Amino acid sequence: MNVIPPALARLIADFGRLPGVGRKTASRLAMHLLRRPAVEAQALAKSLTELHQLITMCSTCCAFSEADPCEICCNPDREQGLVCVVEEPADLVAIEKTASFKGKYHILHGVLSPADGIGPGELKIDRLLERIRRDQVNEVLIATSSTVPGEATAAYLIRHLQENSKVRITRLACGIPMGMDIKYADELTLSRAIASRQQQ
Amino acid sequence: MNVIPPALARLIADFGRLPGVGRKTASRLAMHLLRRPAVEAQALAKSLTELHQLITMCSTCCAFSEADPCEICCNPDREQGLVCVVEEPADLVAIEKTASFKGKYHILHGVLSPADGIGPGELKIDRLLERIRRDQVNEVLIATSSTVPGEATAAYLIRHLQENSKVRITRLACGIPMGMDIKYADELTLSRAIASRQQQ
Ligand SMILES: [Zn+2]
Ligand SMILES: [Zn+2]
Repeated sequence: MNVIPPALARLIADFGRLPGVGRKTASRLAMHLLRRPAVEAQALAKSLTELHQLITMCSTCCAFSEADPCEICCNPDREQGLVCVVEEPADLVAIEKTASFKGKYHILHGVLSPADGIGPGELKIDRLLERIRRDQVNEVLIATSSTVPGEATAAYLIRHLQENSKVRITRLACGIPMGMDIKYADELTLSRAIASRQQQ
Repeated sequence: MNVIPPALARLIADFGRLPGVGRKTASRLAMHLLRRPAVEAQALAKSLTELHQLITMCSTCCAFSEADPCEICCNPDREQGLVCVVEEPADLVAIEKTASFKGKYHILHGVLSPADGIGPGELKIDRLLERIRRDQVNEVLIATSSTVPGEATAAYLIRHLQENSKVRITRLACGIPMGMDIKYADELTLSRAIASRQQQ
């Protein structure tokens, strides 16, 4: 006896395969779309179909883009010799919002995480080295997160780039966030800020 | 400058229109599907396309079904004269799991909620009355939730059915849940259980 129609059960199962979507949420989403006009489910279906059809990975910087090379890699107004290495596309978006970086990017698509089987071969590091040689990159700004895996990835990259290239390597400054009262800064941030103190 | 490719931005926007899915979750889901093989996004797209193509609403009981009338309405082994009224398809599923109800169902698709503009006209009450007359229903078991809107809906239904039909109206018993220590029962449940005490 099918109390849940098979077509509904399939959609619930597909939603449930998405990360962080449990059986209950999957049911709720499917029932919502079933109650709404058919055009809403169809619009989502169309966007899903087009996702891989229209988006490719830029063969230079590994950003997701509808063109290869991507808009940033093609832009002659951006410094060719300065490359900012980030973990994820979202980090690129955050840096672009500041409008204070005028170089190009390189997306690693992850961080080193031995427990999840992610070693240097899983990240886009070979392509970064190729690019440093080919495009005469003179500075690599490492902008991985201040997290344990982010720091481990930065440490690996620094060693690997030093061994395999002569590129200048820089990192984002660490310190007290703007507007933060010192007494509320966590100990690690505070000790980093002291160690990296700057002469005035 | 498009730092997010338009096809990705469209999928994020479509996911973000689903209830309880914020901008951040929508981005996470879209990025996940972009990183996974294209077949996964395509499978979800197919299920979404088929949802409204394959599923209809049973014109007798208002359940979602791939056939009209639905399997339960067609089943000659189920009592035609006993109809259990529930708020949502999920309530039907919960009752079916108990295997202790052998009648048919009627789905209201909601509860009375004046604040959300849901009055009797928005629920499937007219169809229930038609059915009571047409199918010689002799008992309607009201199985709305023990919540404020569920109780209000039950109260409305009881009055409306009494005024417009001669059907026998019953409700699910209220009382102490099985296995619950009386000292942990909430006051309302306990006073209901006392008021509905049963002779042994
Ligand atoms: Zn690029
Ligand atoms: Zn039915």
